[in-house]
Amino acid sequence: MPRYALKIEYDGGPFSGWQRQSAHASVQASLEAAIAKIAPEAPLVQGAGRTDAGVHAWGQVAHVDLARDWVPFRLAGAINFHLKPAPIAVVDVAAVADDFHARFSASGRRYIFRLFNRRAPVTHERGQVWQVIHPLELAPMREAAGLLLGHHDFTTFRSTTCQANSPMKTLDRLDITIRDLDHGTEFIFDVRARSFLHNQVRSFVGTLERVGAGHWTPQDVSRALAARDRAACGPVSPPQGLYLSGVDYAEDPFL
Amino acid sequence: MPRYALKIEYDGGPFSGWQRQSAHASVQASLEAAIAKIAPEAPLVQGAGRTDAGVHAWGQVAHVDLARDWVPFRLAGAINFHLKPAPIAVVDVAAVADDFHARFSASGRRYIFRLFNRRAPVTHERGQVWQVIHPLELAPMREAAGLLLGHHDFTTFRSTTCQANSPMKTLDRLDITIRDLDHGTEFIFDVRARSFLHNQVRSFVGTLERVGAGHWTPQDVSRALAARDRAACGPVSPPQGLYLSGVDYAEDPFL
Repeated sequence: MPRYALKIEYDGGPFSGWQRQSAHASVQASLEAAIAKIAPEAPLVQGAGRTDAGVHAWGQVAHVDLARDWVPFRLAGAINFHLKPAPIAVVDVAAVADDFHARFSASGRRYIFRLFNRRAPVTHERGQVWQVIHPLELAPMREAAGLLLGHHDFTTFRSTTCQANSPMKTLDRLDITIRDLDHGTEFIFDVRARSFLHNQVRSFVGTLERVGAGHWTPQDVSRALAARDRAACGPVSPPQGLYLSGVDYAEDPFL
Repeated sequence: MPRYALKIEYDGGPFSGWQRQSAHASVQASLEAAIAKIAPEAPLVQGAGRTDAGVHAWGQVAHVDLARDWVPFRLAGAINFHLKPAPIAVVDVAAVADDFHARFSASGRRYIFRLFNRRAPVTHERGQVWQVIHPLELAPMREAAGLLLGHHDFTTFRSTTCQANSPMKTLDRLDITIRDLDHGTEFIFDVRARSFLHNQVRSFVGTLERVGAGHWTPQDVSRALAARDRAACGPVSPPQGLYLSGVDYAEDPFL
């Protein structure tokens, strides 16, 4: 059966997360229901990353096996047609080899976290950013972020329900850039690794916010990392600022 | 009574427009209801521009007369508190002289129109952009936009319900820039004038889209302008890509 890789964008707000759950709307089940309309064999959809409830994606990748051959852009159009009105869109499709696996072939994941720092309530970006109303200082946040880079035991920054076998991960990037808004500042966290633990990015962002607010020092973050203790973590940020922005493969199937 | 200028941001989606209407939710009435909670004299709010249903603002300006003095940022906080959960925010407040009038003192209005050009349905920007799925060519759109600049009789680009005394206006700017998205292109129209006719910006954008699509030439736009006939206009774009981005005054009250 021909296998297709799908690049998927979604607003995570209305969903209980990526993963299929019997009682709640999920992105995965929405995609499977749309694909079932054009493929009576009702194939399963395998995603690269299981985003939590309320977490968004610009570049989730999934694969699916279909009984017949499709011209890729027609497949995208047909799935998108049946996805309406859910805020999910297949933005790219590629035919891939049988041994391509969206999750197991992935060599990296990229996340963006958007934090809006301003007093007035957010209007247009509601549900798309984490709003923080007190002032944040960038330099110590960047210093603390740098201390998290590299190969570590990230038990401190891992949900207690995380199912990964090991807390050892290599954090390749945790850059923070800012963008001046008319009234406030957007902090954009760019986070990359081969793979992540459950809640790792939101644990990083919530802890770094405490550094920006002056409640933690960068050294406090170092100590928290070294403690290898979930209780040493700062608060976990809310989900709505988080975006799975891309998934990397040795060979990009969409190029 | 002390007079205050308010800079206001809103998502126009849930509203019948800026202007108070008996049977529908409006931005003006929402602001007046919030202000009435802190000012029992229930003052009227005068806005600089009457945005239509579904049109947004980043920088609407209004003024209001209050019985007592307020520290500006506390006034913003109090109004924002009572506006919840409406997607309206007062992002700045300034005490102004009695002769400041949000509408009549304004020396210019600035609008931004956001057009998303891509095939896949929009997810995160839904209700915030006009999506066009066929390809658009920028160069002829820019050429046609240039032909609209300056002092003209804009009857062609004016709603038949427009209440302005004269169709003569001076268009100071109609720039189009593009931003590459991962999957598609955003066209950003930057439109400025001392004042506008009803539906003028949306008539421009809808007509220029026809040029980008290859259905009209820039010369067709020149002829439509010269016709001074509403029937010569291209389609009017939908409202959800339009933002009142700022209002200019001889002296910026918020500086």
